[in-house]
Parts: sequence; structure tokens; C-alpha cells
Amino acid sequence: MNDLEIIGLDYSYGREVKALDGVGFSVPSGSVVGLLGPNGSGKSTLIKNVFDLLESQAGTIAVGGSPHTTPEAKREAVYLSSNDYLPEFLTAAEYVAMMAGFYGLEVDREDAADLFSRFAMDGRYDDLIENFSHGMRKKTQLIVALLVRRRLTVIDETLNGVDLEALHLAEKELAGLRDEGRSVLLCTHDFPVLERIADEIVFLDHGRVVFNAPTAGLVDEYGSLERMVYGYLEAGER
Amino acid sequence: MNDLEIIGLDYSYGREVKALDGVGFSVPSGSVVGLLGPNGSGKSTLIKNVFDLLESQAGTIAVGGSPHTTPEAKREAVYLSSNDYLPEFLTAAEYVAMMAGFYGLEVDREDAADLFSRFAMDGRYDDLIENFSHGMRKKTQLIVALLVRRRLTVIDETLNGVDLEALHLAEKELAGLRDEGRSVLLCTHDFPVLERIADEIVFLDHGRVVFNAPTAGLVDEYGSLERMVYGYLEAGER
Amino acid sequence: MNDLEIIGLDYSYGREVKALDGVGFSVPSGSVVGLLGPNGSGKSTLIKNVFDLLESQAGTIAVGGSPHTTPEAKREAVYLSSNDYLPEFLTAAEYVAMMAGFYGLEVDREDAADLFSRFAMDGRYDDLIENFSHGMRKKTQLIVALLVRRRLTVIDETLNGVDLEALHLAEKELAGLRDEGRSVLLCTHDFPVLERIADEIVFLDHGRVVFNAPTAGLVDEYGSLERMVYGYLEAGER
Amino acid sequence: MNDLEIIGLDYSYGREVKALDGVGFSVPSGSVVGLLGPNGSGKSTLIKNVFDLLESQAGTIAVGGSPHTTPEAKREAVYLSSNDYLPEFLTAAEYVAMMAGFYGLEVDREDAADLFSRFAMDGRYDDLIENFSHGMRKKTQLIVALLVRRRLTVIDETLNGVDLEALHLAEKELAGLRDEGRSVLLCTHDFPVLERIADEIVFLDHGRVVFNAPTAGLVDEYGSLERMVYGYLEAGER
Repeated sequence: MNDLEIIGLDYSYGREVKALDGVGFSVPSGSVVGLLGPNGSGKSTLIKNVFDLLESQAGTIAVGGSPHTTPEAKREAVYLSSNDYLPEFLTAAEYVAMMAGFYGLEVDREDAADLFSRFAMDGRYDDLIENFSHGMRKKTQLIVALLVRRRLTVIDETLNGVDLEALHLAEKELAGLRDEGRSVLLCTHDFPVLERIADEIVFLDHGRVVFNAPTAGLVDEYGSLERMVYGYLEAGER
Repeated sequence: MNDLEIIGLDYSYGREVKALDGVGFSVPSGSVVGLLGPNGSGKSTLIKNVFDLLESQAGTIAVGGSPHTTPEAKREAVYLSSNDYLPEFLTAAEYVAMMAGFYGLEVDREDAADLFSRFAMDGRYDDLIENFSHGMRKKTQLIVALLVRRRLTVIDETLNGVDLEALHLAEKELAGLRDEGRSVLLCTHDFPVLERIADEIVFLDHGRVVFNAPTAGLVDEYGSLERMVYGYLEAGER
Repeated sequence: MNDLEIIGLDYSYGREVKALDGVGFSVPSGSVVGLLGPNGSGKSTLIKNVFDLLESQAGTIAVGGSPHTTPEAKREAVYLSSNDYLPEFLTAAEYVAMMAGFYGLEVDREDAADLFSRFAMDGRYDDLIENFSHGMRKKTQLIVALLVRRRLTVIDETLNGVDLEALHLAEKELAGLRDEGRSVLLCTHDFPVLERIADEIVFLDHGRVVFNAPTAGLVDEYGSLERMVYGYLEAGER
Repeated sequence: MNDLEIIGLDYSYGREVKALDGVGFSVPSGSVVGLLGPNGSGKSTLIKNVFDLLESQAGTIAVGGSPHTTPEAKREAVYLSSNDYLPEFLTAAEYVAMMAGFYGLEVDREDAADLFSRFAMDGRYDDLIENFSHGMRKKTQLIVALLVRRRLTVIDETLNGVDLEALHLAEKELAGLRDEGRSVLLCTHDFPVLERIADEIVFLDHGRVVFNAPTAGLVDEYGSLERMVYGYLEAGER
């Protein structure tokens, strides 16, 4: 089964800019898919379509088998955006409760506090988010995703710049989601992370899917994801 | 009719701190009520209770006549928090559409763009919020409230620090909400703004309502709201 | 003596926009001068000229009697900008030491910690600034100015939005600077604060000084600073 | 010659925490040295000592052959901190001029505007920094370093999270500094970047240098920097 299935997605801003041009790919249950692309490749437009923040213009998107605009679909996916979209006026605990409420869940306080502690934010669970550094805000976003454990987790550059140990732990936790049969769409240009945990890679450019293949095969072919990407960008085949 | 009615609201964090202690007051339709209080007075706890971000422990809260935890109540109130709780990855237009969607409304693009222009953000309606200054983010929050025009608008210090002309325009626009029979709960310590547009004042300290009276009467009695507040704080009756 | 003296200051961005047009006024020792103006009035350009962040094009600026580009002048003035220009990677204590070093001073640790405590940031003196909320950052800026106690303190909207009690304390502390014979140029549109502590008002519009007079006289004539300002803005004499 | 030479550097916060314990290493002219370490390893304390933001307690630091507290040393090094330590009230052009002034340089406007354009910030050179996104602020920091071209450039995680193409360009530009005989101390845990451009690696843990060796040798021995680091962290030899 596919937790996310996108077919023939088009999107244009105004008349001329074709931001997405027939994009299609899948995120199978129990997998991590890496999403890569330069500035302006369409990644953000794609994610906004998936979360119905932009009204899709052509093509279909299904989350957990349901059309992406339905309540069923919306309950099955969680989105980690940049670290700054957090309600500063809430404590971490209040934010966790708000997000749990959104998904109709109860979150065990001890589980949550334990994750805060493992991500080196011991004792900060009842602090106001306005007193959190950028790194702590990123980790808070990730922890919420790990607590609500949706079928599909979409991570949009959220982990860039977190500390070495948090990144290492994050990787294990994302692998844990996958091992439970959940899936992750991971947007990052941290190539080694992708090489370690992404089963497949989707590489976008100019609104089209340029590569969509198992990570291992791409690494075999190009030597590394990085060589693949920079080779492509410099080849001027664009 | 009261757009907001709070009766006997208690709230404690842990066992000992009584953040709210029997708070009760009303925001009548067609009025602006100013909410004042020093740090730690309970204002934030109060607002979080109203918007169900903290589970109320005792007392009742009704929004538009419905218990505050019901979907009916949630559709009738809009909350303007600090300027930083905005999705940076969206454009202003996308954010407006997201908020309109939340309330089940359609927002006319021209109305929205016109408000952006009147608040000196001409031509920024399709820009990403990540490129907005703090002042522009505050104004964006206010514009959304003016577009969705709920029965009750709660403004939590959002307007502190916006420029002179935006503040002047904001005042007129809030008066416009009131004149349509809507209501505003306005948390600010900009005393002259309160003296001009607040019909009533609620002053909290240590989780209790200290003053709750028509603004005109308080100004008559104390000379100004400022004298009332600072007089109180310095009198040590606390 | 005048701690700041500006004569015939012009400034243009490019050829056409005349951002400052013959601006002149003084800040006498032992006084607080309020600087007011709508968006685009030239306030920011003026302050950037004073601190040599823009190269002045015509006119003269003297700080403590010395031309504003000299080391003597630079040692005599401190600038409080928006709250976000703080080195997040330092603790408050390290930041205070850095600023003291800039002015060739030693700051007593106890004095500093005491001010942090009085501004309700007890025990935060050795915390990283990246963990400070916006309000705490504003207060940190102010505390630094109170510690380095320069001849001239220029405050650019820094106090907007700090809490009621901090604002009250700030007012007393600024009056303390004045009582020691120092001076403050206070940019804010918190009219009551200006009415209480500003000896004189300078009101700019379109790069020119529109009003420059003792506060008491302006309040007598117009009823309040607010009426003066909004009356002017609405009169369309601009 | 060494652009940075550190010998026997100790630093303690309070009596017990030994944040740096006999740290010594060099950054030779014409080289890039990668600085790595987990949270709390002492990296930040080290950099603060180098830039005299913490008063060194034991050991010596020389920049360009001069003791690090001298004006000569301070003129030879530039520090790129987190992206948020930028004066929001200035335009990029004004900020560049301020930094150039600090180093006693003139920056050619065309060179600067050209770098802005190459880093995909075409036409933003005269915009206020308050309207820049996080990514643009990071790139602005880097551009300033490339314009002032000091003997030693210290980059503290500044490039984390910039877009793919900016990172690629940054790498080339840093290599350009090196090729001119300048040097870069690059703190990042982007391992592939380090493997490509760092001549040597310094890995800190618990305030001590654990590894300090040519990158090529470490990669030969451990397979990759990443395996070296995570292997070390997991081995529990700490």
C-alpha cells in the first residue's frame, strides 16, 4: 500500500509559471522517501498541494488511500515545517496537547517528557516556546511528529542545523516510524542522511520528476547522491 | 447578548499556583472590552482557557452563547496572538485562504489585497511571510481578523509596536467591527487606545478581577487608566 | 550644553527621494527629547546618520561637542535598536562584557545581575540570549544602556511591547539618566510615556521638523500629543 | 605560517566545569580546517576565546601572528555567527558598509551587488534586512566575509540549512579564499562538505582535542568522517 500517492499533479502560479508539471510518485507504507531539488524546483508547491494549502489544479493526491482533501486524509498526515511556525505563547506541553487534540489523540505525559529529555531538552517540557532556541524549536516539531505517529510524516528541511546528537537520534526515530509500517517523506539536502535511511529518492527540477529510484541504485550509478545532484546541476541538461 | 461570557473560572498549574481564581466577566455584542494586567496576572491563562488551549478546571465559558469547547463556539472566535505564530512557508494570500478555510469562508481576493494596501503593504499579498518584518506580520494577523470578521475577536498584545498610521487605522477598523455588532477583547497596555475605543475595562491581578467597569467611569474616577493602573500597582494593596 | 546637536542635515537615497531636508534640533544635557513621526518621516535615516551608519551628505552632527564621526563622539552615545540585534550565541553576561569593552568600561557583575533581577529576569544573567523571549531581549538592550551610562542614549522603539512593570521601571531609570545630567533621545509613539518624561518633542514628517517645542506647551495647545499627531496626520496639511 | 595558532587553552565556567582543557591546534595559511564536536564539546567556548568574547584564562591564541587581543589580530579575522546577529534596521548595503568600515576597507558596490545576485538575492542589496528570510540572512553573512576577505574566516554553523545551490557556490568561494592564501575555520557537521574542502579536521569532545589530522587520512582510516564521529560517540570511550 502507498501512504502517499501522487498522479499527474500540475500547478501554475498565474498563467505562465508552471511550478509543477505532471508530477507523480508514491511513498509506500514502511518506507522513507527522500525529496530533493534545487530552489524553485517545485518542492514547496508540491508539499502545499499535499496538505491542501494550495488548491490542486490537475491530478490526484491520496493520503492513506483517501483523497487528500478529506478529513480521513488530513488525520493521517503530519507536516513538520520550518521551526518558526510554533505558537510561542504556549508551553511545549500545551502545544503537544493542542496537536494531539487536532488528531483526536491523547498523549502520555511521561512519553512526551521522556522524548524531551532524550533530545537534550530535559526539564523544558513545561517552558514557554518563546524561550526556546531555534534548535529546540526544530526538535519540538520532530517530537510532536514522533508522539502523534501518523501514517505519513512529511519533514520539510526541519532538521537542518540541529546538533549532531539530535540528528543521530532523529535518524533512529524516523527509522522506527518506518519499521512500524509508517512512512516518511524527508526533504533535506543532507545527502548522507538520505543515503542511510531513504529507501527511494525523488529528485525534482523545474516542476518535473528528474530521478525517482531506489537510493542504493542511484548511489551505485553515480557514486553518491551528492555527485548525482551536483553533476546534474552542472551538466546544464536543465 | 454577550459574545463572551465567563463565570467563576479557576485555573491552577500544579497544586499551588492559582493562576485564575473565580474570574468572571462578559464581552457584550457590539462592544470593545479592554483586558489589562501586569505580568503573571492571569491574562494569558485566561485567553488559553477561552480558546481551549488549556482545559478549564472550574467555571464556564460561552462564546456566542455556546460552550467554548463546541465547534459552534470555535467558529465564532478568532485569536490574534503574537506576531510570530504565522506559517512562514506560505504567502500572505495562502495564509488568508488557510484561515478562511478554517472558518468555512471564502475571502474575496480584492478585499484582501485592498486591506494589504491600506496597511502599507501594497503589492505584498503574494509574497512569502518569511520575507515579512515583525511589523508586517502583526498587520497580517490583524488583516486576517478583519477579513474573517468573527463574532468575537481576541487581540493579545498583537498591535504593540506597529507603526503610528497602522495603529490609527487598526483603531478605526476595530471600531468598525463593533459598529457591526461584533465584539473585541483587546489586551494591550496602550492606555490611550483603550480610553478611546474600549467601552469597558477588565483589570486582572493575581488571577482575580480587580476592576471591571465602563472606561469612562474609571477615567472620571482616576484621571486616566494609566493612573488607575500604576496607582494600584504602587499602592501595594496587592 | 547639548549632548546632541544637529544642524541642516540633508539626506537623499538616490537622486530623488529627499529623506531628510534641513533637519536641525538639539538634545540638551539633562533632558529627555521625544522623537515622533509616521512611517517614512525620516526618523530611521536620522538615527543612522547620527550613528554614522549612513554617511551624512550635508549639515553637521555633534555628539557631546565632537563631530559625530570621531572616536570621542562614538564613545559618548549608545544606541538601542530593535530587540533582535543581539548576539544570540552569547550569554547576557558575555554580551554586557562585550559592550562594556566597546566603551572601555568595567561593569560590576552585581550591578548587572541586580538590574536583571529588577527587570524580572532573575537568574537569567548567565543564560544564552538565544533562549530569551522578545521581551527579554528588549529589556537586555535597555539594561546595557543603563550599565554603560553614556552621555547620550538613543532608544529606537525598543520599549514597544515590554510588559507593564518593565515599562514603568524603564521610565524611572531613564529619568535617572536625565537627573545625572545625561540625555535621552526617545523614539516611541507611546504618547503618555512621552508626556510624562520628555522635556521636548521633535516631530518629523517628510524629512522635515514639523514641531519642536517643550512637551508641556504642545500638550497645552493641542490637549495631548496624540491629538497633535493625529490631528496633523488627518488635516492633510502634509 | 599559521593564521590561527592556539596553544594550551583552558577555560572554566565557575569552578568545576572545565569547558576547554589544554586545547591546541593551528590553522595554516592557505587551508580550510573543519571543527567538529557534539553539543557541549567546547566549540563555542573556543570560538568566543578566539574572538575575545570570553577572557582567556590560560594558554595563548595568535591570529595572523599577533596576540588575539590586539587590534592587529582583530583586524585579521572575521566571524560568521548564527544568522540572527544582523542589524535588521539596516539595508544589506548599509550593513556591508558598516562591516567594511569596521575593517577599514572600502567595498565596491558592484562587487557586492554581484555577489548578492550570484547568491540568488538579485535586487535585494538595498532592502532592509528585516525583510530577509533566515536563508537570506545566512547568505548575507557569508557575502560580507567574502567581501572583507580577512586572513582568517571563522564560520560557526552559519551555512546549515541554506539552499543546495548556495551551498555549492559557498564551497567554491571558500576554496577561493584558501587559494588566495587565506584560511577558513569551518564549524559544521555537514560531513561531505568537510570531506571535500577541509584539509584538516579538529574534533573536540569534553573540551579536549580528540582528533586533529588531515581529512584524507581520517577518511582512509574510518571510511568517512561520519563513521569516525558516530563511531566515536557510540563507542562510549568518552
